[in-house]
Amino acid sequence: VAGVVHANQLNPIYDKVYGGLHGIEGILEEKFYDLTNMSKEENRILRQTPAAALGSCRYKLKKENKEDFDKIFAIIEKYDIDAFFYTGGDDSMNTVNILAQAAAERAKENPNDRCAKCKFIGCPKTVDNDLVITDHCPGFGSAAKYINAVVNSTWLDYNVYTRKEVFILETMGRDAGWLAASSCLTGKVDILILPEVPFDQKKFLEIVDAKVKATNKCYVVVSEGARFADGTYIAARETANDSFGHARLGGAASALEDMITEAGIDTRCKVQDLSTAQRCAVIAQSKTDVEESFNLGMSAHMHSMANDFTGYMVAVKRGSIEKDELGKTLDPKRVSAGLDYNPEFYPVKVDQIAGFNKGFKKDWILKDMAGVSKEALDYVAPLIEGEPNLIMKNGVPAFVLPYYMR
Amino acid sequence: VAGVVHANQLNPIYDKVYGGLHGIEGILEEKFYDLTNMSKEENRILRQTPAAALGSCRYKLKKENKEDFDKIFAIIEKYDIDAFFYTGGDDSMNTVNILAQAAAERAKENPNDRCAKCKFIGCPKTVDNDLVITDHCPGFGSAAKYINAVVNSTWLDYNVYTRKEVFILETMGRDAGWLAASSCLTGKVDILILPEVPFDQKKFLEIVDAKVKATNKCYVVVSEGARFADGTYIAARETANDSFGHARLGGAASALEDMITEAGIDTRCKVQDLSTAQRCAVIAQSKTDVEESFNLGMSAHMHSMANDFTGYMVAVKRGSIEKDELGKTLDPKRVSAGLDYNPEFYPVKVDQIAGFNKGFKKDWILKDMAGVSKEALDYVAPLIEGEPNLIMKNGVPAFVLPYYMR
Repeated sequence: VAGVVHANQLNPIYDKVYGGLHGIEGILEEKFYDLTNMSKEENRILRQTPAAALGSCRYKLKKENKEDFDKIFAIIEKYDIDAFFYTGGDDSMNTVNILAQAAAERAKENPNDRCAKCKFIGCPKTVDNDLVITDHCPGFGSAAKYINAVVNSTWLDYNVYTRKEVFILETMGRDAGWLAASSCLTGKVDILILPEVPFDQKKFLEIVDAKVKATNKCYVVVSEGARFADGTYIAARETANDSFGHARLGGAASALEDMITEAGIDTRCKVQDLSTAQRCAVIAQSKTDVEESFNLGMSAHMHSMANDFTGYMVAVKRGSIEKDELGKTLDPKRVSAGLDYNPEFYPVKVDQIAGFNKGFKKDWILKDMAGVSKEALDYVAPLIEGEPNLIMKNGVPAFVLPYYMR
Repeated sequence: VAGVVHANQLNPIYDKVYGGLHGIEGILEEKFYDLTNMSKEENRILRQTPAAALGSCRYKLKKENKEDFDKIFAIIEKYDIDAFFYTGGDDSMNTVNILAQAAAERAKENPNDRCAKCKFIGCPKTVDNDLVITDHCPGFGSAAKYINAVVNSTWLDYNVYTRKEVFILETMGRDAGWLAASSCLTGKVDILILPEVPFDQKKFLEIVDAKVKATNKCYVVVSEGARFADGTYIAARETANDSFGHARLGGAASALEDMITEAGIDTRCKVQDLSTAQRCAVIAQSKTDVEESFNLGMSAHMHSMANDFTGYMVAVKRGSIEKDELGKTLDPKRVSAGLDYNPEFYPVKVDQIAGFNKGFKKDWILKDMAGVSKEALDYVAPLIEGEPNLIMKNGVPAFVLPYYMR
């Protein structure tokens, strides 16, 4: 959002930049906030404001709800909307896709319909990092940085006593293990449990037992989406599905603790469920991630200049250029290993992305829950590099008041 | 530890500074690490290393275990120990107190015993902030800063949806509500549940219900030590006591979630148990806290010059001087409100501290779980101010390898 607004201040190709409040839910109710003349100061603080400053929604556009589309296209006509930038994960890319398709169909019937001229553009943003095609998703790097900082800290904490102790950290990742896998970056994780590999309880308990017997300690990271071979989640509390049909999870780490206790393994267990904090931890923002996200917004604004640029998402790839922007020669080996990092943006048709899901790469997973390969670590490493200079207020990071509260 | 080592490099009154590994447990086994010539670089990184770089212990010295004291005093004689600095919370101050008393008794019987010349000195350090007499304890400010950063972030996160939602954050604080109370600093907490006030479940549910009906949202902070009027903890899982006889707690937030669900209040609940991460979150260190802790170590080293300085703890008070160290005139009102902050150190007999426990001030607690008073916020505010320049390594804060692992 900050990148699109800033780009349009530099190159004012649109008269107005409206922020739609609460995603499609607020747009259906004509709830906008004019962001056109956002100050430089506010833009900078917006970049360090966690969660969605414009609000979010759990409302799902469905093809059969024709009146929703009628409403949206009427609003597009009323406000003379030329481009519609929508940021988020797979649910958001679905919204972009379905809107672009509906607009195209309508334009076929009536080429003069205003929506025929509106471009629907997706900007990826999800800590889950589970969109296909794009190398990774903005947001993931900062969450991975926070997780690694917590892993290091809690690893030091649980080691201070000589007693036997198992530490179990739970990360988000309903269907994809990217966040859990990223925790291995600093080499502290003994056991990694991902949704991509059926959970073998017997083997898990054997490994824990052996590790505790050998070293008194065992550090376990589990993804909330970890499941048994039959597909049931290991999370103790399986509850109702949310409005998108996703299972609501929680408690995979507690479930592991119970298994260890019930198996009679002689050890204490400590559980740390990172829960919501991991996706909004501004205190551990990755500068690489924040800058890339901002630049992706600017790229989306630029791409929107092109004719017929609708139904696209702006994706990220790792550039293979040999010199960075300051002209420093890069080591091609480091570039290919991801250590020297030059993101490039490029458009991808959103129908190739929406509705798919990219799990953590299976050939990056070490066997026996032993973690991930060097390639996986090289993939994550550059994404958590650098720290922005945060603007602080009263001892904590400043944030912009959400636009839906104004 | 870093302050004592640095002070002795500036004023080398002791030939050696040994770090005792795993507290009294390692000292009994003659496990020391020579810290005398620690490099400036290592000292700086030590200040940002979370948890105890020397290790900690759960071993309790008891008067009746005479052989423990014989061993310790033999080691003091063998290594020619002049001063014994011990850092931690109430359990540590108990250790200092019991050692000082045992040494004094032994010296009475035999004035030439080497332990008669050894000074036992306590340095407060506990996120629980529950030591008496001292204004506060080093460590508390950084934990309070982390908690407030998480409160702000998760408050923004749970507000993004228009749906009804209760967020329940659990903090540490077995007997004292300082950490939970500190969460109110940024004005986001609707309901605060402290161990100092018997928990009234009926009233809690009424307040939640009213708040959700009025605003769709309710942000709750609960201390792990919250309990009913009959003294039982509200935490769902009450388990065995630890070796110090403290109850092991966890799950107060989950217990509240269950109450809300069972009462049929129409809302979602999200639970965030900050668990271990809150006491080792180097990414949210308070510069005020870290500097004060370092300076307290230096002060302890200086005080140890004085004759008969044994059985003391170095306490902190807020200075009322009118000019800060740069000669800037301070506003007396801001000083008395704690906003302009000048810590001063002073010695207190440790037998006035050990075994006592300072709960959160009752007259700072607002009624009906509505939070804490302005005085309380003014007390916490300066302690979370400022951010040290962290040394980073591979995207996360660097730390020294714990001395017990070398």
